[in-house]
Amino acid sequence: MAERLTEAARGVYVISATPFTDRGEIDYPSTDRMVDFYLAEGVHGMTVLGVMGEAPKLSDTEQTAFMRHVLARVDGRIPVIVGVSNPGTDNLVALSRAAMDAGAAGVMIAGIRGLETEEQIHGYFSRVIDRLGPEIPVCLQDYPPTTGVNMSVAVVERLIDEQPSLVMFKHEECPGHRKLSRLRRSPERGHRRVSILTGNGGLYVPQELARGADGIMTGFAFPGMLVEVWERFAAGNAEAAEDLFDLYLPLVRHEQQIGFGLALRKETLRRRGVLTCPAARDPGPRMDADDHAELDRLVARLLSKLEAAGETRPSGL
Amino acid sequence: MAERLTEAARGVYVISATPFTDRGEIDYPSTDRMVDFYLAEGVHGMTVLGVMGEAPKLSDTEQTAFMRHVLARVDGRIPVIVGVSNPGTDNLVALSRAAMDAGAAGVMIAGIRGLETEEQIHGYFSRVIDRLGPEIPVCLQDYPPTTGVNMSVAVVERLIDEQPSLVMFKHEECPGHRKLSRLRRSPERGHRRVSILTGNGGLYVPQELARGADGIMTGFAFPGMLVEVWERFAAGNAEAAEDLFDLYLPLVRHEQQIGFGLALRKETLRRRGVLTCPAARDPGPRMDADDHAELDRLVARLLSKLEAAGETRPSGL
Amino acid sequence: MAERLTEAARGVYVISATPFTDRGEIDYPSTDRMVDFYLAEGVHGMTVLGVMGEAPKLSDTEQTAFMRHVLARVDGRIPVIVGVSNPGTDNLVALSRAAMDAGAAGVMIAGIRGLETEEQIHGYFSRVIDRLGPEIPVCLQDYPPTTGVNMSVAVVERLIDEQPSLVMFKHEECPGHRKLSRLRRSPERGHRRVSILTGNGGLYVPQELARGADGIMTGFAFPGMLVEVWERFAAGNAEAAEDLFDLYLPLVRHEQQIGFGLALRKETLRRRGVLTCPAARDPGPRMDADDHAELDRLVARLLSKLEAAGETRPSGL
Amino acid sequence: MAERLTEAARGVYVISATPFTDRGEIDYPSTDRMVDFYLAEGVHGMTVLGVMGEAPKLSDTEQTAFMRHVLARVDGRIPVIVGVSNPGTDNLVALSRAAMDAGAAGVMIAGIRGLETEEQIHGYFSRVIDRLGPEIPVCLQDYPPTTGVNMSVAVVERLIDEQPSLVMFKHEECPGHRKLSRLRRSPERGHRRVSILTGNGGLYVPQELARGADGIMTGFAFPGMLVEVWERFAAGNAEAAEDLFDLYLPLVRHEQQIGFGLALRKETLRRRGVLTCPAARDPGPRMDADDHAELDRLVARLLSKLEAAGETRPSGL
Repeated sequence: MAERLTEAARGVYVISATPFTDRGEIDYPSTDRMVDFYLAEGVHGMTVLGVMGEAPKLSDTEQTAFMRHVLARVDGRIPVIVGVSNPGTDNLVALSRAAMDAGAAGVMIAGIRGLETEEQIHGYFSRVIDRLGPEIPVCLQDYPPTTGVNMSVAVVERLIDEQPSLVMFKHEECPGHRKLSRLRRSPERGHRRVSILTGNGGLYVPQELARGADGIMTGFAFPGMLVEVWERFAAGNAEAAEDLFDLYLPLVRHEQQIGFGLALRKETLRRRGVLTCPAARDPGPRMDADDHAELDRLVARLLSKLEAAGETRPSGL
Repeated sequence: MAERLTEAARGVYVISATPFTDRGEIDYPSTDRMVDFYLAEGVHGMTVLGVMGEAPKLSDTEQTAFMRHVLARVDGRIPVIVGVSNPGTDNLVALSRAAMDAGAAGVMIAGIRGLETEEQIHGYFSRVIDRLGPEIPVCLQDYPPTTGVNMSVAVVERLIDEQPSLVMFKHEECPGHRKLSRLRRSPERGHRRVSILTGNGGLYVPQELARGADGIMTGFAFPGMLVEVWERFAAGNAEAAEDLFDLYLPLVRHEQQIGFGLALRKETLRRRGVLTCPAARDPGPRMDADDHAELDRLVARLLSKLEAAGETRPSGL
Repeated sequence: MAERLTEAARGVYVISATPFTDRGEIDYPSTDRMVDFYLAEGVHGMTVLGVMGEAPKLSDTEQTAFMRHVLARVDGRIPVIVGVSNPGTDNLVALSRAAMDAGAAGVMIAGIRGLETEEQIHGYFSRVIDRLGPEIPVCLQDYPPTTGVNMSVAVVERLIDEQPSLVMFKHEECPGHRKLSRLRRSPERGHRRVSILTGNGGLYVPQELARGADGIMTGFAFPGMLVEVWERFAAGNAEAAEDLFDLYLPLVRHEQQIGFGLALRKETLRRRGVLTCPAARDPGPRMDADDHAELDRLVARLLSKLEAAGETRPSGL
Repeated sequence: MAERLTEAARGVYVISATPFTDRGEIDYPSTDRMVDFYLAEGVHGMTVLGVMGEAPKLSDTEQTAFMRHVLARVDGRIPVIVGVSNPGTDNLVALSRAAMDAGAAGVMIAGIRGLETEEQIHGYFSRVIDRLGPEIPVCLQDYPPTTGVNMSVAVVERLIDEQPSLVMFKHEECPGHRKLSRLRRSPERGHRRVSILTGNGGLYVPQELARGADGIMTGFAFPGMLVEVWERFAAGNAEAAEDLFDLYLPLVRHEQQIGFGLALRKETLRRRGVLTCPAARDPGPRMDADDHAELDRLVARLLSKLEAAGETRPSGL
């Protein structure tokens, strides 16, 4: 079993897709290939059942089965975080416990619609984390575009102070660089230092690492690039890290189209030999001929630029 | 088994609460009392697993079990509509089929976040209703405050034209009187006449009936008043109908506070001897001492005014 | 000149309409009649250039001219608050100064779109009030449906503590009874007591007065009723106050339809002999034949019930 | 005087900033330098008083004065579009007429909050354009993040069919590539071909040109790059165009941070010798030391990459 998530977590936590067959059922053979692929790309951790994992479109039974399948396949080689956000706290707690029993490293929780004031935000997360108990490590997910919940630095720090099990913050506000810098400096104001991973599709990775992020949590379909960028940065080669990142930036930007990006990512995983079927579950985005031609061209340009720069060609393409 | 829902549906369809024990589990003895209570109040139909029924906070298993339990208790005496809205269409279809197998009269479907244009709205509902097939009667639920989906008269008429199984429209836009009038006149423009029931907590019932609504679908904790108002109106006594309605209007207005109204309704059902425990599931609204005193006073005023007007006292109070 | 607004402000502050001719120009003769009408109805104060006053549809020049005209007509008999909300702080400050120079009692300021966290809300209002300086009394307007700004009790109290010129809070969150009670009890927690007037179209006036509101600020077209309700309540006759209120509640509820209510209010003022032309400026709501018939019926019912109850008939009808 | 805007408009229309002094007044000497700078960068057109131009924070008087000043400085060398969006149609029309009188090529109009259905959107723009009359060329601005208005292809085509003066569509939905492709193919379905310029900060320029956009309308602080990209693309060198674009993409992405981007753009214009003072009007974003260091680094990387690629160094840096 993997160790529990702690404040020391660093690196690239890939947000896992959920593979489906063309009949809309969970595709477990593709799931196995996907887990192996993520491991081969060198990711430091994995998150399942996130928004990109189409978790709200899975039944409770499917969520549990998929999560257990992935955890068994990973078999403790990297920490796995399970997204457990749910309109009802009972279901959230039940899935969290099942996840920890199955070997998860921790759970990720986003806010729900209707949390407007800091008191409401603080009240909701306090209640949820209290009900989870002190043994389940929590990653607090900040994602205003989907949740409508805007967490200030103050409310995050208050939750960090009060909830020892809150060990990770997934930063995803945009624009949010200043918030990241301020949260990174929280320890200077006497708050516990937690792990900060950044999202936003990876669009600002070099800037976020320079501002002190511990890593990246996103579903970009070339996670190996993010690993290499992170490692170069960690080794002190910030310019070489950003040089590589910038080669991929056209695709990072392309995948970051909210909602539609899921179709692009699943199709790219299909092209890389990972998924048998790229379909998202209904209702979900679908690519048309223009979209395919556009992706063809962006991938061709990427491969050509990587070759010119002497960088590694991504597997499967 | 109750007959299937048709365009001829009329009257008061009460939106059912979901009773919980103080430990947060579904309270089936209270559920039985509640079903009996609704029948005793004379409602013409019932809707379970709506927003007010806290459906998103129930697990799939609980949704199915609760729906089956209610249907068995009702035992075909009135039509029961099952709310099946779900972020994923597969789950929506599965619950719909289970509901019809268990004796439901039809299903109710609201839009999901992100449907902005008419093409998107039309595309979503077309796809969902196509997947349900022609045998499952559908009530289209219009509820912009929660879903963010704004359905124009044009898109509703187009869906009515294309989908014979769409037999009911739950009107709940506010302000929305003009939309109601225009939809009511749809047959003059060549569209099939469907049943229109109105929501908005019942705040505008007399005006809506005057504009041609076929009935009311809401969770007001005194459904018997709505039944009496509807029947007086149907009998041609519009003034007497509105006289009774106006006596209750202070409470209608009080319960119609979005979100918090659920706590008021469950507490009122408790006071009326229906529910053992008034709690909503977590996260849900809770009443404090001020709220209780306020409700006490409004109920006392209601009883006094009903008596002065020679109207029937609600049971249990 | 009227005295400056203070924390002791109480009673009914009517939100003034802005009369237009049928060519869309400000109608000053109607404005004079309207001011006289409000005074005859007994209001304790007036607010011009609010949302209901269509302020954003007036040019800067028109705003200033209208505000000056009203102030001259009122001539210090009651305090007049001027709504000065503006996307730009420079314009806000300029209008505020002009208003005070013309004899206003104070200014009313709402938040602007994009203020999400308490730090942002606090920062915005602090900056604005700092720029206004300590001499201009401020009413802080809370109106989430239009502004998207949700002010917690904590942030309001912080602003009260820091800004001595903040003397009034216009409460308009809905549901918001608990927030009102908590703000009313702010002095128990050591904060300065400010005047709290409530909005929401007056829908909850008796409950709000019972919870300690100092008065009402809304544009209901029968302000005399609100005055009488407030005075009965202030005299200790809460039941008689609510009895009268409940007679008008069907119309209060009718006018409270957000957006469309403006057309109903201007038409009612026209019927009462106040406005020559009921039109709102473009883009604005317009009544159709159904709407007129509906209003006819509600007004007829009101007059009949007032007569039966021995209450005063509103002037002009 | 420049010619009127027509459906044949192509190229780069830069969205102009509005320069202020450090006291918050319009800075006309900087305005002159800015106009000269834009012309030197080779832009094909200019748009003033857009969102980025902080138009809602200018008084009516300032809007008119600034617009006239810019038009006089441009002196007909390129077409100038004036943003005239306003909550009130009277003010919108008045500014439009003043703009045309001063030599503008046309006006740009976005939707206003509250337009939800296609009927509402169609009704609003029809009314506004009818009031402008057939002589004022109109650019329809699509910008859901700020306006909350989502225009479908169907409603845009209907407006194009009905309003001959609608000659340009500013596309700014994101994700919106498919919408762009479909609008581009409108003529195949019998609709008039209008000019389509794309916004979104330029983030997808190569993809948008490939899908048939006629040009770009954005406020990127290096408009000369956009001009060169557009010209290479127009000359058939799509790869060379995208090669240059990709060198700037890190900065395009950086400036595209909604809201904060304004501070970055004004600071970049200051660094390039255009603006004396980079401040936005209150309330507006401000850069801190971290933000400056981040921009320093991104600009240094840009200059180094441009040099390595043999591309032209931007003026002033």
